[in-house]
Amino acid sequence: MTHTTDQCSARPPGRPRSERAAKAIVDATLDLLAEEGGVAGVSIEAVAARAGVGKTTIYRRWPNKEALIIDALAALKEPLPEPRGVSVREDLIAIARAFVADKSDKKRVDCYWSVLGSAERYPELVERVTREVIEPRREVMRAALRRGIASGELRPDLDVELAQWIITGTITHRARAAGAGPVPVDFAERIVDAVLAGFAAH
Amino acid sequence: MTHTTDQCSARPPGRPRSERAAKAIVDATLDLLAEEGGVAGVSIEAVAARAGVGKTTIYRRWPNKEALIIDALAALKEPLPEPRGVSVREDLIAIARAFVADKSDKKRVDCYWSVLGSAERYPELVERVTREVIEPRREVMRAALRRGIASGELRPDLDVELAQWIITGTITHRARAAGAGPVPVDFAERIVDAVLAGFAAH
Repeated sequence: MTHTTDQCSARPPGRPRSERAAKAIVDATLDLLAEEGGVAGVSIEAVAARAGVGKTTIYRRWPNKEALIIDALAALKEPLPEPRGVSVREDLIAIARAFVADKSDKKRVDCYWSVLGSAERYPELVERVTREVIEPRREVMRAALRRGIASGELRPDLDVELAQWIITGTITHRARAAGAGPVPVDFAERIVDAVLAGFAAH
Repeated sequence: MTHTTDQCSARPPGRPRSERAAKAIVDATLDLLAEEGGVAGVSIEAVAARAGVGKTTIYRRWPNKEALIIDALAALKEPLPEPRGVSVREDLIAIARAFVADKSDKKRVDCYWSVLGSAERYPELVERVTREVIEPRREVMRAALRRGIASGELRPDLDVELAQWIITGTITHRARAAGAGPVPVDFAERIVDAVLAGFAAH
């Protein structure tokens, strides 16, 4: 009885053991990705050792290292806000804020670039991360821009793909740019207002 | 006489021997930077061996490895156009085109990121590259934007620093973005027109 109680009290309420193990596995994968070895340093063996689980626990959920890396990267991303639909400005700022949060955490950025920088050695992995993790986030931005065109708030001839690159690119670059320091808290709002209004005098 | 003539004909006209050696040294440095070892793989010994020169030839011009890396990176950059001063639009497009050219060459990009990505191990080197190579190029963009405000072509309340991040960031990110393919030839012009006009319907 005492033994059983101890086991139960060691388990935080509402989080079953398999979920705790999954979190430890994902965290171990991210730790390894952020280290010098990058993708090459991630193996089912190394993850199991770092997470303190058996390899079969990993294989029960992930068929291979690639699937594990993709889920781990997806877990890093800030959840995107549901568009509130009040104005395109509000929706774009909310999405841009989630992007800023993604880019402002050094470990997240290191993990991402360690994968994206390995396209020559792991082309299929990078292709899958792009398609399954990055592209859906770009699409949320495009959808907000398309709604803005449909509502008449944005120019009917706006190039949605280019506009998406401008907002996401400015955030991504600013967060990594040499010597630029941390991204200011109001950066998302300032970018959106600057590109909506345009630089030209009227 | 024949011997002397041979020596002369082996030397391309207008390029003295010391300049050819300097070019071989800079090229060897860039080759090493683009390889897996990155900054750690660059040493005066390795550069001398790859360039086929003696170490003293290198030390005659560069006091240390850091100075050599900085000059090598600077040599990679597209020369920036002289502003023609006809319109802010033309000046911004000309500068943006040079930035696109910088980012469209894989070797240039690899060399840069291999240095910029090593800030933890080589903070002083990255700080010098930022100050001596990158920051002057950002300043050319800012100067063009300031001229546009002064001429009345741009909004008087334009945030020049933010505007600079938007143009350079979009180019830098688009060139590196996963799965995005090569930068279209008219990308510089399209960005400048999009940000000048703004996304909002009038």
